[in-house]
Amino acid sequence: MALTLSRPDMISLAAGFTDNESLPVRETREIVRELLSNPAKGRPTLQYGVTPGDETLRLLTAERLQRLDGVRKRSAAHDPRRVMISGGSQQILYMVTEALCDEGDIVLVEDPTYFVYLGILQSHGLQARGIQVDRDGLNLAHLERTLEHMKRSGAIRRLKMLYLVSYFHNPTGLTMSLEKKARALALLRRYERAAGHPIYLLEDAAYRELRFRGEEVPSALVVRGAGSRVIYAGTYSKPFATGVRVGFGVMPEPLFSTVIRIKGNHDFGTANLTQQILVKALGLGIYDAHLDRLRKRYARKSAVMLRAFQQHMPPEVEWWTPDGGLYFWVRLPSGIPVGQPSRVFKDAVRANVLYVPGELCYASQSSRRIPANEMRVSFGGARLADIPEGVARLGKVLRTAVRRAR
Amino acid sequence: MALTLSRPDMISLAAGFTDNESLPVRETREIVRELLSNPAKGRPTLQYGVTPGDETLRLLTAERLQRLDGVRKRSAAHDPRRVMISGGSQQILYMVTEALCDEGDIVLVEDPTYFVYLGILQSHGLQARGIQVDRDGLNLAHLERTLEHMKRSGAIRRLKMLYLVSYFHNPTGLTMSLEKKARALALLRRYERAAGHPIYLLEDAAYRELRFRGEEVPSALVVRGAGSRVIYAGTYSKPFATGVRVGFGVMPEPLFSTVIRIKGNHDFGTANLTQQILVKALGLGIYDAHLDRLRKRYARKSAVMLRAFQQHMPPEVEWWTPDGGLYFWVRLPSGIPVGQPSRVFKDAVRANVLYVPGELCYASQSSRRIPANEMRVSFGGARLADIPEGVARLGKVLRTAVRRAR
Repeated sequence: MALTLSRPDMISLAAGFTDNESLPVRETREIVRELLSNPAKGRPTLQYGVTPGDETLRLLTAERLQRLDGVRKRSAAHDPRRVMISGGSQQILYMVTEALCDEGDIVLVEDPTYFVYLGILQSHGLQARGIQVDRDGLNLAHLERTLEHMKRSGAIRRLKMLYLVSYFHNPTGLTMSLEKKARALALLRRYERAAGHPIYLLEDAAYRELRFRGEEVPSALVVRGAGSRVIYAGTYSKPFATGVRVGFGVMPEPLFSTVIRIKGNHDFGTANLTQQILVKALGLGIYDAHLDRLRKRYARKSAVMLRAFQQHMPPEVEWWTPDGGLYFWVRLPSGIPVGQPSRVFKDAVRANVLYVPGELCYASQSSRRIPANEMRVSFGGARLADIPEGVARLGKVLRTAVRRAR
Repeated sequence: MALTLSRPDMISLAAGFTDNESLPVRETREIVRELLSNPAKGRPTLQYGVTPGDETLRLLTAERLQRLDGVRKRSAAHDPRRVMISGGSQQILYMVTEALCDEGDIVLVEDPTYFVYLGILQSHGLQARGIQVDRDGLNLAHLERTLEHMKRSGAIRRLKMLYLVSYFHNPTGLTMSLEKKARALALLRRYERAAGHPIYLLEDAAYRELRFRGEEVPSALVVRGAGSRVIYAGTYSKPFATGVRVGFGVMPEPLFSTVIRIKGNHDFGTANLTQQILVKALGLGIYDAHLDRLRKRYARKSAVMLRAFQQHMPPEVEWWTPDGGLYFWVRLPSGIPVGQPSRVFKDAVRANVLYVPGELCYASQSSRRIPANEMRVSFGGARLADIPEGVARLGKVLRTAVRRAR
């Protein structure tokens, strides 16, 4: 980020920023004007709220999730009393991890996974153990082998959670099927007796609403038995405005009560102003109208990036094209490292283009030797007009690297 | 809070809420209108910021603190690079404690102190040890005796911090003199060799700007040697609008870098919209103009409360009248308990008036038997017009209790 700021010609395909040009400036201005139109009406917005978050926002969130999940009847897993509002979904990940895990405990993660979550685990002295992913998400056979192995070694007694970025996965862009999530949850439950405690599934759905192609996939909340074992982390920041940081978590008791105590200690509740903006945006349909535009925008940006890949990447380079979210996952031949110490990375910086080295996204207890030849390339934050040039620069660097490796 | 909501006749003199009627509704609306007046100008406000907070806000904060502290020359302790923006000062307290303390460590606190901070300590498995306070703040002789005792027992090796609510203390309303802060810091330094590590002074200045009488007291940041040992937690929420939750911390390296990593894990930065509102409010003088009005408002509310005390309290009841902040500290004869299980508390609830029992504000390792006869009575959140009636109700309950105890 420092590099991007100091070099105006830099095109960052690294940052997980959202599209800048489509931010809802007018919409937010009008919402605030309405919220604060007169003193009596405006005061509650500017006063403290309550720790779990605004009641209406919790209700709207529960209803929205239930709709997204295609559940008709009132479901226990979508009860508004399970919904907690937070300062972004990140805070939910942090608090849940703090609530469930003690130093030395183990969390299973996808290999690769969201690198900031690896930082959270590390900062709590927890072990992240990687589970392999295939083209359609988590490798269930590897999950089962890992659980079995942990059972035999006794390590299962330290296992608290499986963390999944289930929609347009960061960094790979993959979405996991409902069936896989259900089977993963069933597997976890089978090992609970050996663990001696619940093993939770933490579903990070931060990118869920950013789908621009294909069919909606229900969350793990609809799986039988999910009510007591699934924790869902979502956000309104990426789909609406990242400067209005509001996320939410859905979680069962007694975890909810523990996390509320932690939330009380963190900040006793997310800023009321930003919550009220979301209440209005959701309630008046402004959010959905914006989301429609945003999805079209990302569809366009990803199509432009795909075309640029096809034009500029050497034939030795592969990529996964996402159906939503912000990321392409790019793989070079295995002999060509692209990590921060690599020549490719340095050449890219020199060529004024940035990406995220894939190796940062692997757990230290990875399921295999950490691949050095992968990168996350984002179309989220870059300006539409800059994407072809950014990819052209990167393509040139990679063509040189492939030639050099021959 | 649940009680207040469910019983509309309830007058809460308990909550630490700020004055509702003076919230800057029009001012905030105009600021947001200006911030979001057109798309190009508005986008940065709605995009992610950086983890330590907006550069301009950090600079304005450093300058403001330096001015409040009466320091003319650029001071290392007031360097903007030491300022971190947070979601309220509470988050600073939380992160600093997480950064400095390991399970089993000891933090010295005033006896009584801010009860939410006691919760933070407890949730991290830390020990809170109480230091006595006199009418003018911390009892330095007791601090020294405690340090000496800890040195002899070896417990000093677990001591990481002294936590002080130094302005209009919650719950007692006291403000500590600069001299006392300087002497406390000097004492801590004397025991660092025995501790084997730095012992920090965490100054919680959440109420500082809410002074309505008397002279400004400089913060511990101006004390010689403060640069490397003083952590300062402040907030813009209480002086401006609690619904726009923005606080800040000032801290030395290497602590700053550790806390930034924690902040990155929590939420990688406070909502940009709320930060930009403060940038405008501070930069355009709106904040100071509002603060002027707010101080007059609290002066009036506290005067009304004082008059009501004089009128309605039985002669056996004593109170400390504050020069700022939100709280009166009230003491009954020692034979009359007022805690949650007490008859007085139940009678007060029945009479539709709430206060905070003082016993909640004592560390479990208190310096003495925890007094059961104290209460925190707030004029912050109650409506001005309700204060006389609230105090009248409380006075009636207390007169009955005093009569009963005779």
